[in-house]
Amino acid sequence: MAQEFIHDDFLLGSDAARALYHGYAESMPILDYHNHLSAREVAEDFRAENIAQLWLGGDHYKWRAMRAAGVEERYVTGDASDWEKFERWAATVPQTMRNPLYHWTALELKRYFGIDTLLKPETAREIYEQCNAMLRSDPESFSARGLLRRMGVEAICTTDDPADSLEYHRTYAETRGEGDPQMWPAWRPDRVMAVEDPERWNTYINRLSETTGRGIDRLADLLDALRRRQRFFAETGCRVSDHGLDTFYGEDFTEAGLESLFVSLRRGRGLTETETAVFKSGMLYHLAAMNAEQGWAQQFHVGPLRNNRTRLMRCYGADAGGDSLDDQPVARAMGRFLDRLDREGLLTRTIVYNLNPKDGEAMAAMVGNFQDGSVPGKMQYGAAWWFSDHLNGMRRQLDILSDYGLLSRFVGMLTDSRSFLSFPRHEYFRRLLCDLLGRDLEQGRIPRSETEAVGRMVRGICYDNAKRYFGF
Amino acid sequence: MAQEFIHDDFLLGSDAARALYHGYAESMPILDYHNHLSAREVAEDFRAENIAQLWLGGDHYKWRAMRAAGVEERYVTGDASDWEKFERWAATVPQTMRNPLYHWTALELKRYFGIDTLLKPETAREIYEQCNAMLRSDPESFSARGLLRRMGVEAICTTDDPADSLEYHRTYAETRGEGDPQMWPAWRPDRVMAVEDPERWNTYINRLSETTGRGIDRLADLLDALRRRQRFFAETGCRVSDHGLDTFYGEDFTEAGLESLFVSLRRGRGLTETETAVFKSGMLYHLAAMNAEQGWAQQFHVGPLRNNRTRLMRCYGADAGGDSLDDQPVARAMGRFLDRLDREGLLTRTIVYNLNPKDGEAMAAMVGNFQDGSVPGKMQYGAAWWFSDHLNGMRRQLDILSDYGLLSRFVGMLTDSRSFLSFPRHEYFRRLLCDLLGRDLEQGRIPRSETEAVGRMVRGICYDNAKRYFGF
Amino acid sequence: MAQEFIHDDFLLGSDAARALYHGYAESMPILDYHNHLSAREVAEDFRAENIAQLWLGGDHYKWRAMRAAGVEERYVTGDASDWEKFERWAATVPQTMRNPLYHWTALELKRYFGIDTLLKPETAREIYEQCNAMLRSDPESFSARGLLRRMGVEAICTTDDPADSLEYHRTYAETRGEGDPQMWPAWRPDRVMAVEDPERWNTYINRLSETTGRGIDRLADLLDALRRRQRFFAETGCRVSDHGLDTFYGEDFTEAGLESLFVSLRRGRGLTETETAVFKSGMLYHLAAMNAEQGWAQQFHVGPLRNNRTRLMRCYGADAGGDSLDDQPVARAMGRFLDRLDREGLLTRTIVYNLNPKDGEAMAAMVGNFQDGSVPGKMQYGAAWWFSDHLNGMRRQLDILSDYGLLSRFVGMLTDSRSFLSFPRHEYFRRLLCDLLGRDLEQGRIPRSETEAVGRMVRGICYDNAKRYFGF
Repeated sequence: MAQEFIHDDFLLGSDAARALYHGYAESMPILDYHNHLSAREVAEDFRAENIAQLWLGGDHYKWRAMRAAGVEERYVTGDASDWEKFERWAATVPQTMRNPLYHWTALELKRYFGIDTLLKPETAREIYEQCNAMLRSDPESFSARGLLRRMGVEAICTTDDPADSLEYHRTYAETRGEGDPQMWPAWRPDRVMAVEDPERWNTYINRLSETTGRGIDRLADLLDALRRRQRFFAETGCRVSDHGLDTFYGEDFTEAGLESLFVSLRRGRGLTETETAVFKSGMLYHLAAMNAEQGWAQQFHVGPLRNNRTRLMRCYGADAGGDSLDDQPVARAMGRFLDRLDREGLLTRTIVYNLNPKDGEAMAAMVGNFQDGSVPGKMQYGAAWWFSDHLNGMRRQLDILSDYGLLSRFVGMLTDSRSFLSFPRHEYFRRLLCDLLGRDLEQGRIPRSETEAVGRMVRGICYDNAKRYFGF
Repeated sequence: MAQEFIHDDFLLGSDAARALYHGYAESMPILDYHNHLSAREVAEDFRAENIAQLWLGGDHYKWRAMRAAGVEERYVTGDASDWEKFERWAATVPQTMRNPLYHWTALELKRYFGIDTLLKPETAREIYEQCNAMLRSDPESFSARGLLRRMGVEAICTTDDPADSLEYHRTYAETRGEGDPQMWPAWRPDRVMAVEDPERWNTYINRLSETTGRGIDRLADLLDALRRRQRFFAETGCRVSDHGLDTFYGEDFTEAGLESLFVSLRRGRGLTETETAVFKSGMLYHLAAMNAEQGWAQQFHVGPLRNNRTRLMRCYGADAGGDSLDDQPVARAMGRFLDRLDREGLLTRTIVYNLNPKDGEAMAAMVGNFQDGSVPGKMQYGAAWWFSDHLNGMRRQLDILSDYGLLSRFVGMLTDSRSFLSFPRHEYFRRLLCDLLGRDLEQGRIPRSETEAVGRMVRGICYDNAKRYFGF
Repeated sequence: MAQEFIHDDFLLGSDAARALYHGYAESMPILDYHNHLSAREVAEDFRAENIAQLWLGGDHYKWRAMRAAGVEERYVTGDASDWEKFERWAATVPQTMRNPLYHWTALELKRYFGIDTLLKPETAREIYEQCNAMLRSDPESFSARGLLRRMGVEAICTTDDPADSLEYHRTYAETRGEGDPQMWPAWRPDRVMAVEDPERWNTYINRLSETTGRGIDRLADLLDALRRRQRFFAETGCRVSDHGLDTFYGEDFTEAGLESLFVSLRRGRGLTETETAVFKSGMLYHLAAMNAEQGWAQQFHVGPLRNNRTRLMRCYGADAGGDSLDDQPVARAMGRFLDRLDREGLLTRTIVYNLNPKDGEAMAAMVGNFQDGSVPGKMQYGAAWWFSDHLNGMRRQLDILSDYGLLSRFVGMLTDSRSFLSFPRHEYFRRLLCDLLGRDLEQGRIPRSETEAVGRMVRGICYDNAKRYFGF
């Protein structure tokens, strides 16, 4: 009988790799310290009506693939029925060979539904009905919490706006059952920096003002509001911030200059390009300084170029699959930004992620400048995410991290995902990691006598390092 | 007996790879939708006097290698005899190990001449005479058409200036024999954008004016002239345009602004750097809009930095081996350019190629934003060409395409070549493609049960996809 | 018994690789044409008191790793004892798995001390004492010269400022014993271009003035002083220059414009950003023109972004581990710079190295434009150094060089190191080179019949090419 696609040793190309994976990686719990799950759906233990809803709603990876396969928008994000959408997705899957979606799809069907059959037009109906039957017959296992529990997720950090009430995090904390993962907010103050559209920015600042019940007329008021919200986030378990940036901002600024730009903005005046760069440099500095005050770890996700297709943006809004990679130089601004914090003793534990692979070496080398011996692996060159979340991208990140720093101190993988079904990506990463290290052992690049140490390193990267680093 | 270098399974590293290549790829005809062959030589069924003429005339790849090997210019592009040039090339070949020229040379000797002997100083005379004897004794097989026929070339698209009379395409269409490939022009209006030298630009615009028999005094006249020439090209079978760009141009412009720059240029005034960027942005937009009106596919070859060595340019002109890669950021301008077309419903099927490998991921991700479901694989991340046309470059393109899009929809390889002997590069590509997919099958990254589907994908990439995409 | 980590066939993954390494590479002497050893220590035949001194003093690679591992600065560059520092380093080594330091450490212990035991906390004391005992008992073998002799180093080029007296090179030349390597200076006039800080620059120009005993009031005086120093360097055996650049400078300049900027600088006035670029463009041109006058080979190390961490710079000065990679576009300026020299017949043999891997293809293609047939391999795309000096980085450099030029003409590896113990990096490189070429032979990418030619190529890259190229 033919072997299943997703078998025990999937991606594990050597005995050493198999021993590492099964001996060390496989059973480690998951700490998904960066994702975009809905806290509300976790709190309310969301149950999908069918697999299409669970799989295709909000998944811009799949949407992009479907459009590329020639699927009309009606079946992608439009008003077609769930079954019709699923059918089109099934027709797309065989066309995704060599794309991570091909592996993710098979892994998710296998791990959540125990299905070995490949999804394709001929099997679409059968798989659709089988999955939906399972959703109905075993709702406990397929609810939001059930899905997380079954993958061994011990903790997740969602992504939350400073003005968010965090009510669902609070409710959840009270109702969390045995075996349910912990759920903490992560602090994502990106909108504070989004000054390109002063009207939207002011609306947002007003919302922040309402949330804190205090006026925000001067920069100091904004910083005060943010500090109040940070304390509130901290009380709700937050210990990590997350900053999405097209690029780093490291321009010189003065407090007086910032203040004057702030007041202009509050009056609804737009900033010039130069002023924008200065304002963002100042805000980014303050946001990072606050992270240090809180003792949080901070993450910088650098490199997306968003909303490139106006038609998509107009019809469906952001996150519809119209984003790609920016390619500006980034090293100098990154250096100036980190150095200012370091000079003032305000550089907290920091993870920097690049979206454009060309930036990997420059960023990995730059974070290395700011290792200061205070915390092992204080400065992290972070995991491959989004467009880089595939075997080549993850391997590249692991290689760069190895060549420019200490792989052994790596805090490991994250899903960066909006989907409850995406947790096998941790397995995917772990298999690749063990395959790489197994090959090193087999080829004598790491001595065999160190297999046990390699195993401990694997466990560190899968779990232990993140637990220690974030203080979970 | 030692196995020949170019044997049946050259580059095919697994049983699965061999099965894919011999079962699916090998026998597919060639659609070379992008090359620089001389239409005249095809029409006139050019016959070279000797292998040196056929091989070394106009081949800047070989010239660069010879100069790097310390060969004097006299033997490269100078007045040395054909034999002397061939002799120097033969002395260079062994020095090209690991360069694609090493493989190309052996492949071309094998496929066109049946020669297994390696070219080197000791074998130069013998190979020279053997090849030349074959050229003389079997002129039918070694004429321009004969060479194309023997490689299974079903169609070629040459590269043609809007002012070109296309007389040879027309003659050829009338005289084409059975088994001869189709030959269509491709529309390459690069000179319309070459405003850096206003005098040369005006000379060119005047030529265009003469071709159409109408004055070109205003921008509208130019666009009208181009439209007329496009219709003429279309009547001659053209269905694809080709745009060589150092980078994309996506500046804002108004029609009035463009008009004023156009009038300035026509008066012989040079443009500032900023004005040049604006003018090029406008022209590129109009050229792309016209491609959409025609329903053609359009290609953007992005990234060369041309004529870097003045001495070479002065002595031998362009395309003498003095070009290399530009490294400016490109993503933002590319996004703005494509978005404007998309917003206005004027974005036709589009292939974007990068010359600098650092741009691959950003470009592949950007084209993905504009997939709109109207045509499968509408937006293509195109093949590895010129400086990237080697195993590492082709593998990188295939990997990026796989990771960021749908390999299965890829329209495949092109020669981008001026040489009638370069068609084994399709074989070279196909072997690599099958080797990659074969390895995926052997390593369980694609299930074995899908071998047949993989084979269909291979056939698609070799032939079927391009046929459908270009409407050949 | 388990095989040692560093065994005869370390990194050699095929029979062909092993045959190449042991048959051709292993026994070749070393020409380390680019390093940062102290001429004084060579001349005085420096003897370290202990392994910590020899290994950890000045090694910013190790310092960065220790900081990343959470080691306090006191144990890195501070006032902790040698043993304490060694102990911390030993604790760091197991954490460097997959980093080149892991391999370098094992190679250095094996080659210099015959130690197979892996360095880790448990073995630290034993290895420390064993090494120190050897240093004491066999001082001849562990002195500066002894260490070089034992690795088969035939010649080294140090890195020297134009104002340097070269007294140690001269002393050494007189006292050099049989079997001791030759030692020549390399000309590194970087400080002439460091005009960002006019005061420091003037101090330096004054020092140059004192060295030559002539006033430097005008640009012509500076060029005259440099020419005098070049002649002095040439008399002391110098035949190569070395230019460390963040990026290339290719702005237009006039002699009058340069003169006026020079006079401004001498009066202590700072230059604007634009003026700085112009001044550097002019100086770089003059420095390169002088290299051509001398008939030296010139090296351009492009891409570091230095002293990013102010705190480190303030406490420990430069070269403390606070440097990383710049990521500006570089191709256009590089082209203009080289073209100007080429136009004027002033482009001497040139090696260009990139630190940021993203620049590799653009630089390798650009140097190819300036091959002129006068010298085989005149223009070199140079070895992987500093942040790129690891298996992936070296492989990438070899692949790019192969794909864009002639590997066979490569002048090979350099240590670029400050440490007397770093010469096994040549072995490391040679093993990788043979592994790559061996794989090509095994996979039929190079015909087996050419094994002997491949062997000659290996010898060329290890030794013969550099000997011829530099005229050693």
